[in-house]
Amino acid sequence: MNASNAEVAIIMGSQSDWSTMRNASETLEELGIEHESLIVSAHRTPDRMFEFAKNAKASGFKVIIAGAGGAAHLPGMVAALTPLPVFGVPVESKALSGQDSLLSIVQMPGGVPVGTLAIGKAGAINAALLAAAILALGDEDLAERLDAFRMEQTDKVAKHPVDGA
Amino acid sequence: MNASNAEVAIIMGSQSDWSTMRNASETLEELGIEHESLIVSAHRTPDRMFEFAKNAKASGFKVIIAGAGGAAHLPGMVAALTPLPVFGVPVESKALSGQDSLLSIVQMPGGVPVGTLAIGKAGAINAALLAAAILALGDEDLAERLDAFRMEQTDKVAKHPVDGA
Amino acid sequence: MNASNAEVAIIMGSQSDWSTMRNASETLEELGIEHESLIVSAHRTPDRMFEFAKNAKASGFKVIIAGAGGAAHLPGMVAALTPLPVFGVPVESKALSGQDSLLSIVQMPGGVPVGTLAIGKAGAINAALLAAAILALGDEDLAERLDAFRMEQTDKVAKHPVDGA
Amino acid sequence: MNASNAEVAIIMGSQSDWSTMRNASETLEELGIEHESLIVSAHRTPDRMFEFAKNAKASGFKVIIAGAGGAAHLPGMVAALTPLPVFGVPVESKALSGQDSLLSIVQMPGGVPVGTLAIGKAGAINAALLAAAILALGDEDLAERLDAFRMEQTDKVAKHPVDGA
Amino acid sequence: MNASNAEVAIIMGSQSDWSTMRNASETLEELGIEHESLIVSAHRTPDRMFEFAKNAKASGFKVIIAGAGGAAHLPGMVAALTPLPVFGVPVESKALSGQDSLLSIVQMPGGVPVGTLAIGKAGAINAALLAAAILALGDEDLAERLDAFRMEQTDKVAKHPVDGA
Amino acid sequence: MNASNAEVAIIMGSQSDWSTMRNASETLEELGIEHESLIVSAHRTPDRMFEFAKNAKASGFKVIIAGAGGAAHLPGMVAALTPLPVFGVPVESKALSGQDSLLSIVQMPGGVPVGTLAIGKAGAINAALLAAAILALGDEDLAERLDAFRMEQTDKVAKHPVDGA
Amino acid sequence: MNASNAEVAIIMGSQSDWSTMRNASETLEELGIEHESLIVSAHRTPDRMFEFAKNAKASGFKVIIAGAGGAAHLPGMVAALTPLPVFGVPVESKALSGQDSLLSIVQMPGGVPVGTLAIGKAGAINAALLAAAILALGDEDLAERLDAFRMEQTDKVAKHPVDGA
Amino acid sequence: MNASNAEVAIIMGSQSDWSTMRNASETLEELGIEHESLIVSAHRTPDRMFEFAKNAKASGFKVIIAGAGGAAHLPGMVAALTPLPVFGVPVESKALSGQDSLLSIVQMPGGVPVGTLAIGKAGAINAALLAAAILALGDEDLAERLDAFRMEQTDKVAKHPVDGA
Repeated sequence: MNASNAEVAIIMGSQSDWSTMRNASETLEELGIEHESLIVSAHRTPDRMFEFAKNAKASGFKVIIAGAGGAAHLPGMVAALTPLPVFGVPVESKALSGQDSLLSIVQMPGGVPVGTLAIGKAGAINAALLAAAILALGDEDLAERLDAFRMEQTDKVAKHPVDGA
Repeated sequence: MNASNAEVAIIMGSQSDWSTMRNASETLEELGIEHESLIVSAHRTPDRMFEFAKNAKASGFKVIIAGAGGAAHLPGMVAALTPLPVFGVPVESKALSGQDSLLSIVQMPGGVPVGTLAIGKAGAINAALLAAAILALGDEDLAERLDAFRMEQTDKVAKHPVDGA
Repeated sequence: MNASNAEVAIIMGSQSDWSTMRNASETLEELGIEHESLIVSAHRTPDRMFEFAKNAKASGFKVIIAGAGGAAHLPGMVAALTPLPVFGVPVESKALSGQDSLLSIVQMPGGVPVGTLAIGKAGAINAALLAAAILALGDEDLAERLDAFRMEQTDKVAKHPVDGA
Repeated sequence: MNASNAEVAIIMGSQSDWSTMRNASETLEELGIEHESLIVSAHRTPDRMFEFAKNAKASGFKVIIAGAGGAAHLPGMVAALTPLPVFGVPVESKALSGQDSLLSIVQMPGGVPVGTLAIGKAGAINAALLAAAILALGDEDLAERLDAFRMEQTDKVAKHPVDGA
Repeated sequence: MNASNAEVAIIMGSQSDWSTMRNASETLEELGIEHESLIVSAHRTPDRMFEFAKNAKASGFKVIIAGAGGAAHLPGMVAALTPLPVFGVPVESKALSGQDSLLSIVQMPGGVPVGTLAIGKAGAINAALLAAAILALGDEDLAERLDAFRMEQTDKVAKHPVDGA
Repeated sequence: MNASNAEVAIIMGSQSDWSTMRNASETLEELGIEHESLIVSAHRTPDRMFEFAKNAKASGFKVIIAGAGGAAHLPGMVAALTPLPVFGVPVESKALSGQDSLLSIVQMPGGVPVGTLAIGKAGAINAALLAAAILALGDEDLAERLDAFRMEQTDKVAKHPVDGA
Repeated sequence: MNASNAEVAIIMGSQSDWSTMRNASETLEELGIEHESLIVSAHRTPDRMFEFAKNAKASGFKVIIAGAGGAAHLPGMVAALTPLPVFGVPVESKALSGQDSLLSIVQMPGGVPVGTLAIGKAGAINAALLAAAILALGDEDLAERLDAFRMEQTDKVAKHPVDGA
Repeated sequence: MNASNAEVAIIMGSQSDWSTMRNASETLEELGIEHESLIVSAHRTPDRMFEFAKNAKASGFKVIIAGAGGAAHLPGMVAALTPLPVFGVPVESKALSGQDSLLSIVQMPGGVPVGTLAIGKAGAINAALLAAAILALGDEDLAERLDAFRMEQTDKVAKHPVDGA
């Protein structure tokens, strides 16, 4: 069992990815979903990555969210090592603005899927919402909280744009 | 209830997307997952699309796979209208090789997620495998079939390349 | 009838698009064309979007200008639901500088047209000028005002560049 | 008055663009809209281009559709010389697949609009449909024909994909 | 004859291009080449552009340098209207960093050449140096000044990098 | 003196570039300009390249046209070694369609100019026409032949597109 | 010790990469360098990949050449698991022509290097030549064979292009 | 013999590349590898470049690291002139963020290899680490220092992300 009895693991390649990935954590928090955030680098801690991925299901995780930038190998490698659904968040890279991150995550070969979200903050939020939609398939309470979240989101859209907002 | 008691809906914008999306259907078939394939065009049949998406959950679907090309709006619009998890497959477009399809599907704003797979055939296969991984969270039999599928996939990788293969 | 007896509707996906789209509003203002600016999100308010688009012609609008960024579905979806001419303005996105917005708007399939303008402010101004050119086909007064606008624009181009300008 | 009392001019930079632009012509034909197709090269016949554009309105044209490829200057230059609405169709280029054509047409500076359609055949069809939508604003008969065209288009979308289609 | 008996004309689409194009002017200045800088907009002052280009040779110009950004039509249109050699400088655009400017200038069809330089300041400097190389073919004094310029450029390259430089 | 008393040297990185560069040769031929075509590889024959470039002016050449593909270093390196004007033709590469060739040629640093033409055949034709325009500055006969070439080019543009052409 | 006492391992993600990677093998063959070619998929055989990479040095390999396409994780993951120099060859992918392969391989984070070669066949040849250059640092005989290879390469470049070659 | 008995030469096209390339120098420093940093411009000092490259091996260098931006010809030209292994670091360019630098360096033709690293700082660090891995093949002490460096790198990766870090 993982430390916090978490259903979702949020992993990322380095501390610098946290400013993006915390948006996933905060969204899960808001929806009342237990989760754990970990730094797992495919390149600098490959053994930790293997161990995490191979044990993820047995640890009780149901969904994995992985954020990485540049030659982003973390989501795809974890997906190669676990039967759990894996979602990838391309972190915006310095020179290429996340175009490298996006292609490195999404262009997986047939056989090993990674569900990929948008580059950056929007992608991190949406990875959490997608995890929630999946968990809600077997959790009617969560399904209701998710519906409420979406309704509130709809209601907050104003009718007219306002200057200076 | 949908026609075939299907758990997965495979939708696509036009008949021409079928040569890509049939790979999703065949993969689900191989894993013994009930599914239904439908043509639903966001642009040419917007009413059908709205009706499909709004009723998808009540119809018994649990996961939606949507393939589209060019200015590919189908996955994102369906995701806006259903609480179910939606996965998008960018179909390879003529002039831009699916780069337009990919960006139109993956770059969703925070709040409405679409899990995006690779451009073309590999993406269609992987959307099916991701749907399977999700359904397997609540179906131990399917989890075993999926494990077997993955093991067989691993076993089929030869040790050495062969000329003329 | 729409609130202001407006001929042109300027719609946009979110409040944050207003800093771009206000340039369309100001240009229409300058040309004396009645218009209304609305927030209509394809993804967060799909019902509002459907209702707006289906009623746009009956409400008295003649031209629709739609601005959106990222996986920009608003212009294309509105075009799918109204016989009115629809013009799309790709709003500059954070990571990809509006390249995603541009392709998501312009690469529409045959059958549902969106006339697409440049990314950002220039596109918003030009969407308004294109709407004006269309309305001027049936409004000789407006045609004259538009001619004057263009002539003034030509006259304001200096002969020589000036340092420090 | 132009030769055929045409309301729409379809112009293109060279004979080789006709395989793309004939789709615009055929769509206008189908909708019963008078039009004329001309070769007008911004680069090889700049005088013809100036004369055409300066006289387009007086000749009775109401809408101009311009197709061009590569460093595609025709739509923008014509838009600089006429108050009529101009729509640009990026023709697929050899090396860059129309990405150069698209950017050369759509990225017009504020002040001189070109409504840009998709690269290639889809764009040519849609330019015609957009012209039709504009002319329909002042022609109730055409508005009905256009509605019928769109309804037929919707009706032709099959419910299910078919193998081998 | 042009105002200053200039051999090189530096033209640009708008005042805002001057911060880039002044680098061409300063380089010509340094090499002692008479030149004139003019604002000539293909889109906002098409008549001025036609007149300039058609008279450029008779006015005594020998080389034309044209800078423009976005859907940059100025270099190509001038090249269509004059037998003089024309060089294009892609000005860095806001959203697309000059990629649109570059493709709009360089991808000219066979028959109407524009020699294209790098995006931005380096391109402006190099357009001037290329003009100088051409004029030097018939001006031995200039050839010597250009050789000296290049030798000095070589001599100024330090042997070792220095911190804080 | 070079073998053929040529004014223009056409150089290219390999035999495979000839199918592109022969278009430059044929255009010069048509205009009656003496030229010589040589294979000079920056990467495989760097010494030959140095020798060629350093002696080009003394050999009697006035303009150099260099075609290359991929990491195309030939035009820029020759430009670094000769005061003569150098024009680069990006040859269409296999994987990246000449986008690598284009950027490798055009993005030269300030100080060493290469006038760059379009990717492929059009660029090769235009490099020849640009060389002709330069030589025509000091050769009234050639200027007249070039004018005739351009007039004929204009005259050959038909008024209307023709099916099946 | 590895099977063939090989100094270079050529690994690739799938049998389909062999048509590219055999060029590396043939080049090493030509230079008389012992090598072994293996299929090692980061995604489908992650355990085999880990085992190979962790044992590569102890097995006697000195240099690793890894070819992969799409979301190409093999070179980077192997580099994370071995102290040996690793070179990556981006295999040309279907939709994106190897642009995804290139970015997935080259954009490695600081700390884990992969020396990346060109997309496709040229890259495979060059990976072999780079391995040879490295091995030649400690093998004077190989250094001489490599010099001879390069000299022959230079000598084979003809002086003039030939029609029909 | 080179000045400092250095095994690695770090060369770059201009002083402005030093802020990137100093990361290579600092990494070699940290690993105790003798090296020398030089400014060698392919374009502004081609003779110096030829002399450096032709003498590099005789001078005692074993590995060359070359950084350059834009139309980056330095790594490839040096590789054409020396049998030593050459590694290229694409320096981030102003307009195109190093995409031009990357393609100009990596897309070398078969026969002349340049091992290319990531754009910018990460690439400079990794070029040094790759040089170290190569030198470690014949230097057991260095191999141990490199192992220690990598182990320390692994150990420094924290388990959990920290806010505000």
